[in-house]
Amino acid sequence: MQDYEYMKLALSMARAAVGQTSPNPSVGAVVVKNGEILGMGAHLKAGTPHAEVHAIRTAGENARGADLYVTLEPCSHYGKTPPCTELIISAGIKRVVVATLDPNPLVAGSGIKQLRQAGIEVEVGVGKEEADNINEPFFHYIQTGKPFVTLKAAVTLDGKTAAKTGDSKWITSTQARSDVHQLRHEHDAILVGIQTVLKDNPLLTTRLPRGGKNPIRIILDTHLRIPLDANVIKDKTAKTIIITGNELDQQKAGKLQELGAEVVPLSTGRIDINELLTVLGKRRIMSVLVEGGSKVHASFMKTGAYQQVIFYVAPKIIGGMDAIPAIGGEGLDFVRDAEKLEFTSVERIGPDLKITAKPARTEGDNKCLQE
Amino acid sequence: MQDYEYMKLALSMARAAVGQTSPNPSVGAVVVKNGEILGMGAHLKAGTPHAEVHAIRTAGENARGADLYVTLEPCSHYGKTPPCTELIISAGIKRVVVATLDPNPLVAGSGIKQLRQAGIEVEVGVGKEEADNINEPFFHYIQTGKPFVTLKAAVTLDGKTAAKTGDSKWITSTQARSDVHQLRHEHDAILVGIQTVLKDNPLLTTRLPRGGKNPIRIILDTHLRIPLDANVIKDKTAKTIIITGNELDQQKAGKLQELGAEVVPLSTGRIDINELLTVLGKRRIMSVLVEGGSKVHASFMKTGAYQQVIFYVAPKIIGGMDAIPAIGGEGLDFVRDAEKLEFTSVERIGPDLKITAKPARTEGDNKCLQE
Repeated sequence: MQDYEYMKLALSMARAAVGQTSPNPSVGAVVVKNGEILGMGAHLKAGTPHAEVHAIRTAGENARGADLYVTLEPCSHYGKTPPCTELIISAGIKRVVVATLDPNPLVAGSGIKQLRQAGIEVEVGVGKEEADNINEPFFHYIQTGKPFVTLKAAVTLDGKTAAKTGDSKWITSTQARSDVHQLRHEHDAILVGIQTVLKDNPLLTTRLPRGGKNPIRIILDTHLRIPLDANVIKDKTAKTIIITGNELDQQKAGKLQELGAEVVPLSTGRIDINELLTVLGKRRIMSVLVEGGSKVHASFMKTGAYQQVIFYVAPKIIGGMDAIPAIGGEGLDFVRDAEKLEFTSVERIGPDLKITAKPARTEGDNKCLQE
Repeated sequence: MQDYEYMKLALSMARAAVGQTSPNPSVGAVVVKNGEILGMGAHLKAGTPHAEVHAIRTAGENARGADLYVTLEPCSHYGKTPPCTELIISAGIKRVVVATLDPNPLVAGSGIKQLRQAGIEVEVGVGKEEADNINEPFFHYIQTGKPFVTLKAAVTLDGKTAAKTGDSKWITSTQARSDVHQLRHEHDAILVGIQTVLKDNPLLTTRLPRGGKNPIRIILDTHLRIPLDANVIKDKTAKTIIITGNELDQQKAGKLQELGAEVVPLSTGRIDINELLTVLGKRRIMSVLVEGGSKVHASFMKTGAYQQVIFYVAPKIIGGMDAIPAIGGEGLDFVRDAEKLEFTSVERIGPDLKITAKPARTEGDNKCLQE
């Protein structure tokens, strides 16, 4: 096998652990000597050993003289665990292949430097694009202090999330809905507006055939209208944070807190999306899946506060001037002012399409870039 | 090469001629002997030789003992040209490979039968799916007497065809718009509602770098509101048919006819889509590209009178409850009643997506099937 193929193995382990390592990145590692894989592993949970540790431990004494493939630059500082660079050096690794550098510009390259000073050959950049992609939310968080925001919607081919009556069950297939549960598992938090809670009374948990991690539930509820018996309050399998304006009903807030929810008032009478993201970032929430409704999507869109858009498109047509669109609010007056995105992938999920797009990075005037 | 590869060559010639052979189907043919291609050709225009004729003529005397690959069952009756079966027999072709049978159930198989009776070996079905696809509008027309209807829209990722102000220039890229001109070239007719004429005053011609065939322009205009100086009236490079209700202003109709347009009143005070399609079918219009607006799309959708939907989706977001959706009208009340389609292809056209869908054929209750 070639360098890239060993790295692909490491990347696939890292990808599989996405969602369970926060606030750490997801990393995979492989130890190889004379074309034989001697050890491999991934970081699986914060506070447990890093990928390099698993791979080198499995290799044991055989690691001496071997190559190490690792999807992210090995850490060189003392955190919850000792620095991986020390272990790599003491294990006698001869060559290290790294997919991408540490996203923190203050420490990027320092792990590499330590290894090279110890006489280890280091190569950087093999599989970089995939590696950056796997930890994109982590990288974004490290660089901005705010969570990586994904706006998710399920729409008909004609762009509706619900009929004019409000009926929305179900736009997409069971396969697409299952994919959404995988997305929930991969995110630190899931966010909806109070309208969605009042209308659908969702649980907002991850329901996958083999289980999954529940994201923190965040409800945007300026006037604290959430019912005390809402499913997101009654259900205790995930934490619920209610974001309100600063003119809140203290008594109701108290009751909600007694029931286990957290009520977080922002500094003004309305919910400012930028303030919200700063607050969430301080709580080490690195990724937020925004599931709507269309007014909430419009707020994030208007603020330019999103890094990714995922539309599940069903092969159905609802039609009608009054059906509910994916993105509501006031909207723009002119097509030339439209939010410019670029499609990053299109997949078929059962009968549906999963279209992923990102803010266009080439447009100088794109407000998303200033986020 | 294998049978399928020779057929692929024949299919690619047939595909290239789509749009220029109406009311005939598009057909390609290849003559092969001892692994050498001796002749090939496609039917290029009604009234000119069929594909088999070109291919066999090119092969000349060498056609004796050769194999013939042809994308559609050779004709066995006298039309504008003599039957191809006679030529195939007299040229001494040894074996004929046919992709698909004549769509007319009354004559399907009779060409094959004649060839077999003459001692020629015949194989049917190689490349059938592609062959059926190339002539789908033709097959539909032959079987129903009505044109094959494609609903086409250009939308943002959030399903809008225009901002709330009506502004719609331009949703999609130049590449996608050029693809639409190729669609126009491939259709017998293009259809829009009077609102589109009043708002955009379009030419509705085919504008491709190397030229193309202009479809007949059909305007749905119940009350004959079209201005005498509209571009579709002034421009003489394509024929214009104005479809109206039966209570029309005879004087204005006369003026329009003097200007070269044809005014066709239907039998009632409104435009019934089924009657419209019958009228167009009688004029040997085999395929219609419906370019909107959203009310016209909704009418076709409601009637179930369409065979294909093409959405060009731009990586843009306009947002807003009042922006113009691709499919307007009243719309449906419940998601379970939505028009069921299936995605048949997704292509990238420059920065945009071209999503093609067809009415789902598996749903017994799909009204499109009754068309």
